[in-house]
Order: sequence, then structure tokens, then C-alpha cells
Amino acid sequence: MSTGQEHTVKAFDQDIGQLRALISQMGGLAEQAIEDAMLALSRGDAELANEVRKKDKQIDAIEAELEKLVVRVIALRAPMADDLREVIAALKIAAVIERIGDYAKNIAKRVPLIHAEGEERIDVVSILPSMGQLAADMVHDVLDAYSARDPEAAIRVCKRDNALDDFYDSIFRTLVTYMVENSRTISQVAHLLFVAKNLERVGDHATNVAEMVYFAATGEYMAERETGEAGAN
Amino acid sequence: MSTGQEHTVKAFDQDIGQLRALISQMGGLAEQAIEDAMLALSRGDAELANEVRKKDKQIDAIEAELEKLVVRVIALRAPMADDLREVIAALKIAAVIERIGDYAKNIAKRVPLIHAEGEERIDVVSILPSMGQLAADMVHDVLDAYSARDPEAAIRVCKRDNALDDFYDSIFRTLVTYMVENSRTISQVAHLLFVAKNLERVGDHATNVAEMVYFAATGEYMAERETGEAGAN
Repeated sequence: MSTGQEHTVKAFDQDIGQLRALISQMGGLAEQAIEDAMLALSRGDAELANEVRKKDKQIDAIEAELEKLVVRVIALRAPMADDLREVIAALKIAAVIERIGDYAKNIAKRVPLIHAEGEERIDVVSILPSMGQLAADMVHDVLDAYSARDPEAAIRVCKRDNALDDFYDSIFRTLVTYMVENSRTISQVAHLLFVAKNLERVGDHATNVAEMVYFAATGEYMAERETGEAGAN
Repeated sequence: MSTGQEHTVKAFDQDIGQLRALISQMGGLAEQAIEDAMLALSRGDAELANEVRKKDKQIDAIEAELEKLVVRVIALRAPMADDLREVIAALKIAAVIERIGDYAKNIAKRVPLIHAEGEERIDVVSILPSMGQLAADMVHDVLDAYSARDPEAAIRVCKRDNALDDFYDSIFRTLVTYMVENSRTISQVAHLLFVAKNLERVGDHATNVAEMVYFAATGEYMAERETGEAGAN
């Protein structure tokens, strides 16, 4: 970022600071949303699940605010080269965080379907909460990497995506086996399958942000071997 | 859009035309990808599925090209107000189309898992191809709405999303019932569940684009009742 003394440069730095603050705020809400959705899921807490759904509107509202700010910054400051790329990156990262929030909301929506009244209580996947924590941690860490503009931290986030994919593969197999053996709860377990898939997608999106952070910090694309590729399960 | 005679205005119109052409190209590829992935699925054609996966890189490459063009247009032309919003909208629409391409790729990835060698041939969901066609049609129609800047056509796309959600709900129930009765094929059918979910998500994204088209054409947000809300299944 430029450090010039001109009025417009200082104003631009303030704008960028504001964009970054909005992204941190969105990211904090998204991380919390994943944790709360997973808590609601393990407790069968429909009220908490409902709160996660409501709070998603806050994330959407911040994204809309950020978008307006981006348009204003570009129109007023006419940023060039690196500065412009940083503004565009903020727009893209915000869109990804909004999607992460949607995945948390989707998990929350499934809580009442999984713990439906009169239905058998199911508690088949002991490692699902650990998977949820890893996904939330990746979101947390990639936002730290973004704040610190730290390409090494971004690489570390990407590497953890493989662990998340392994979690998913293992949970997929466990759930399918469970369905084979417990046909009464197949519908509930199918929803759990989507929960695991949503968490796996959260990891993919954290990885996407990490790649953008890396690119913004180094001007180069992250090597393919660092990024990992999502499985098809 | 402005129709002034100045050199820079004409150049800007050309840029916008180029952005729109790139979006049409991406959209055409995404629509084709959905159709091909669904064809590969019904035929059990692993080769065609593989081609869909390869072609997704083209969509990604066009998005990257569009992004560079956006940065160049903003830097060179310093567009204001409506023009700037149109440029930002192109960036956002391209990102959504890229995601639609990813869903088609994800369907293609599941073809060999659903039609695994030595596994039972399953053919449980006769309405899945119709759902695929509806999703592809929505992508086609929303791109037409974008080209024509037609807010009424955008509303029609959103209304069809409800039909897609109904397809999904029906397929979800059919597949769960099938799993209950055929435990040997649960893993394959679980993949079909994800295929249906991917198509449902394609519809959501077509709806997102339709909302952007509507906003760009009218300056107003589409009324909530027109947009439909995705189910949680």
C-alpha cells in the first residue's frame, strides 16, 4: 500500500482500513455462525439454530455495505494498479465469506429436520463436531492471514484443507454404513451427510480466500500442490 | 448506458460490450456443462463426464480474463455511477457463473461413483433429467435476460426456481425411500442426492443473477415474493 503524504492517499488508506474492518467483522460473524450451528446440531437446540439463520442477515448486510463502499472508493479515489487490485480483492473475499455464512445457515436449517420431534434421537458421528471446529478454525486463521498479509499463514490454511477432506470422506463412509444398518433414520442421516458436505465446502472457501491473500501478498499464484483439490464425495 | 460521442465514452461502450460477450461465453459453457454432465450421468458415460471436468477450466480462464478486463476498464476509463455499477455487476455475475460451472463439474465427478464397475446399475430417478434440463434452461434464460436487460424476463427466471425446489423435494423423498428399500446401493444413491442438490443450487445461482439483472435494469431490488427462498433439504 502507498504511504504518500497527499490528502487523497491518506483518504485511500482510511478507505482500505474500513474495507478490511468490514471483512474482519463479516469473518468473525461467519466463524461464530459455524460454531453456533454445530452447537445447535449437537444439542438439538432449535432456538440457537434459528438465531444462526437470523444472524445471517447481518453478514449479508455487511457485504452490501462493503460493496457500496467499494463503488464509492473507486469513484472518488480512482485507485490504480495494486491499490485497485486490493479493492477488488476485498470485494471478492467478502463474497466468499457471505457464502461461508450461507453454509452455516444451511446447517442450522437442518437442525430441526435431524432432530425432528417423535423421530429417533441419532448421534452417529462423533467426529462431526471436530470437523466443524476445524472448518471454523480455518475461517478464523485465513482472516488472521488476511489482516497480517501473511502468505505463509495462507499456505498453512490450505494445507489444513486436506485434513478437512479426510474428515469428510471418513464421515461419508460412516454415515452410509449407518444408513445401511438403520433404515428408519435414513432421512435424518441424509441431512447429516449434507452438514458434513457444507463443512467441507466451508474449507474450500477458506482455501479460496487463502489463495487470494497469498496472491495479494506475493503477486504470484500459490503453487498447485499447496492448494489441494476437493474430493467428489 | 451513455451514448455520448467522445472517444472515451465510445471506448467504454466497447469495453462493456466485451465484458458482456465474455459473460455470454461463460454462460453458454456453463449451460452446456450442466446438460453434458446430466447426459453423462444418464448414460453412465465416464468419458463425457471427464470432458465436462476438463472444460470447466475454460470457464475459470474466462472469469480470470474478465477480472483483468474489469481492472483495466476501471483504471483506464474511471467509470462513474451507473457505468461503474455495470462493471461491478459483470464481475459479480461472472463469479456466479463460475460457481454454476463448478456444480456441473461436481455432478460429472460423481458419474463414475454412481456407475461404479461391478456395482448394481441404478436408475431410480426418472425425473432427475427433467430437473437438470430445467436448471440448464434457467441458466440459459437468465443470460438472455442479462443480454436484453429485461427485468420481466429476470422475474420469470426467479419464478421457475420454485419448480426446481419442488423437483428437489420430490427427488429427495424418492431417493430416501429407495435407500430404505435397497440398502446395497445406498452409497450410489447418496451421490444422486448430491446431484439433485447441485441442480437445486444451480437454480439458486440463476436466481441470484436474475436479481442482479433486475437491479441493474430498474435500479430497484426485486420484491421478496418474486425471489423464492431455497428449501433446506
